[in-house]
Amino acid sequence: MKHARHVVVAIDSFKGSASSLQAEQHVASGIAKVDPEAHITQVPIADGGEGTVAALTTALHGQVLKRTVTGPLGEQVQAEFGMLDDHTAVVEMAQASGITLTSQDPADALRASTFGVGELIQQAIAQGATAIYLGLGGSATTDGGVGMAKALGVEFTDANGEAIPCGAEGLAKLAHIDTSHMVPGVAQVTIKILSDVTNPLVGPQGAAAIYGPQKGLTDGAIPRVDGWLRHYAQLVEQATGIAVADRPGAGAAGGLGAGLMAFCHTEMYQGIDHILKLLRLDEQLAHADYVITGEGQMDAQSANGKAPVGIAKAAKRFGLPVVALVGAHADDLAPVYAAGIDVVLAIGNRPQSLAEAIANTAQNLTIAGETAMRIFMLKKKGE
Amino acid sequence: MKHARHVVVAIDSFKGSASSLQAEQHVASGIAKVDPEAHITQVPIADGGEGTVAALTTALHGQVLKRTVTGPLGEQVQAEFGMLDDHTAVVEMAQASGITLTSQDPADALRASTFGVGELIQQAIAQGATAIYLGLGGSATTDGGVGMAKALGVEFTDANGEAIPCGAEGLAKLAHIDTSHMVPGVAQVTIKILSDVTNPLVGPQGAAAIYGPQKGLTDGAIPRVDGWLRHYAQLVEQATGIAVADRPGAGAAGGLGAGLMAFCHTEMYQGIDHILKLLRLDEQLAHADYVITGEGQMDAQSANGKAPVGIAKAAKRFGLPVVALVGAHADDLAPVYAAGIDVVLAIGNRPQSLAEAIANTAQNLTIAGETAMRIFMLKKKGE
Repeated sequence: MKHARHVVVAIDSFKGSASSLQAEQHVASGIAKVDPEAHITQVPIADGGEGTVAALTTALHGQVLKRTVTGPLGEQVQAEFGMLDDHTAVVEMAQASGITLTSQDPADALRASTFGVGELIQQAIAQGATAIYLGLGGSATTDGGVGMAKALGVEFTDANGEAIPCGAEGLAKLAHIDTSHMVPGVAQVTIKILSDVTNPLVGPQGAAAIYGPQKGLTDGAIPRVDGWLRHYAQLVEQATGIAVADRPGAGAAGGLGAGLMAFCHTEMYQGIDHILKLLRLDEQLAHADYVITGEGQMDAQSANGKAPVGIAKAAKRFGLPVVALVGAHADDLAPVYAAGIDVVLAIGNRPQSLAEAIANTAQNLTIAGETAMRIFMLKKKGE
Repeated sequence: MKHARHVVVAIDSFKGSASSLQAEQHVASGIAKVDPEAHITQVPIADGGEGTVAALTTALHGQVLKRTVTGPLGEQVQAEFGMLDDHTAVVEMAQASGITLTSQDPADALRASTFGVGELIQQAIAQGATAIYLGLGGSATTDGGVGMAKALGVEFTDANGEAIPCGAEGLAKLAHIDTSHMVPGVAQVTIKILSDVTNPLVGPQGAAAIYGPQKGLTDGAIPRVDGWLRHYAQLVEQATGIAVADRPGAGAAGGLGAGLMAFCHTEMYQGIDHILKLLRLDEQLAHADYVITGEGQMDAQSANGKAPVGIAKAAKRFGLPVVALVGAHADDLAPVYAAGIDVVLAIGNRPQSLAEAIANTAQNLTIAGETAMRIFMLKKKGE
């Protein structure tokens, strides 16, 4: 008896069009049109940004919990985090303090706080977590993680002993940091940072200079914020003995990296390979015949650490053929092909504008899934 | 020693973007990027329309000859025809009397004549042809083939014995047909009509009703022209004994089909299978490993007699995998897949408007050729 074909579908989000899980569902429906008997395993992919909670809870059959926490500008927001087992949680900073929750204007960029991230960490600890995977992508903030730390009991005060305001602008008044009243449980928890950002906290490659503009920081504000973060780092070092100013990754999520390194036990999980290990991709590949991956935009840089190439490398360890479905790709993909992807297909069955393509994402991915499956099933001469 | 991979590239024209031969050259350059050692055989495809002379002379290593003949509106035009061997020619009606040579307005539609086609036939006869493949696609005319016949010596006169004017409007005055002074050699030549049109000369499915509008005939003119063609058919039958009014294919090329049937020996070569036989596709497929076909637009109707499916059917007789590259395709291609095409790929590596897609045809086809070759070379688990 012929065994059912087993297809692993592991596609990164098509940013602005489809989440990883949505993209995979569309592709799966295309596969089913060609081979209704196919066994399809969807492995949602996330890199620490939007979708990280969904990806990890799906892959590891965890539980999703909803909480109301403080948004970046002080409003109440609904956020989800996941419990992967009794002692392991997954939190996405973007759900509490994400850039989509602000208007990305200069005022918001200075006010936005990571307080809600600290609340989510507290909630995870309350659920019994001693390890928390924390995705740092998509932040609205440049507060150095002060909001997060405040939620966990660290006290940040000005020269008069008054609590400083929220956000990057609060750092301007910072005179003293007191870690003596931290929330119980924080000392026992390990924060496993999911992030590909290796920038330092300050300087020309720092959080304000590199990521400030996309959050709304003006050219004029950036050197001021950078100066405040530098002063903050000095006070952090005085209070904790930990030097965070130049540490790789300290600049992630507007300096949330630095705050976590200063006030929590942290481990860095950098790069897609870590994520794929966490998602137990290999367990799925071991039983697979074909692999479909993809992402919104693929270029020669995609060979360096982006999800589809990481997935392809893993697939090749099992000798599996890999087709990548993409919204758009560069003319020359030689580095991507060299890295192990066999075929790259741009989705879309006709000329269409970007707006049309985004509107047609579901249909385009479904057709592309059908095409990919037909590619796998293509019989050569003599077969 | 591993033998070089042999790829047959047989792609129909991308109308308005690339001729068959151009499309195949772009695809070949993409194949070469993946496998510089690949042996690539280009088989230009034509269905009796534009490109027929080029396709047949290329496939059969014939000779192309240039002649100045009379265009549809009486001007001089440069036309090419081919000699496939000492006694076999190929002529394309569109080169002498094609729709791109008129403005497709009501006046041109009534005046356009097939006289130049007759001149090309004469030239082919003068070269020694006893068989002429005549492609009927792309005509500007609705003259019933009167112009063509006139060039071959048939006399068409009005009630006063005067020669009638050119074009459909001349038929209004037609009173008498005299075939007694035909050009020497016409009686010895067989016209092998290449056309998929099966319409009759007259009536609701006739040359004027169905093809008149695209040539510029107005709604008011169509019934008049249809009446003239009906009267013409009666006079043809009186003069030759041949009834052409309702004969399938008589309505091709504005009734040129009828004129050929009435005044020449004709054979009908209908359908892509005849063309593919003529192009000796099987001889190429016998040595091939992979087949790439394609066309500008593919839909469910493509399963009925269009080139790519004809090519796929031939390829399947040799057990060859077939990838079709298309400018655009319908969402559902089930009939096309069922007919033997393994994979259909829409060319284009990103969302782009139709105008951009047309401008990028060369690049899009090159990338698609690369992708198709990667599909053929994809190794499955255990290979």
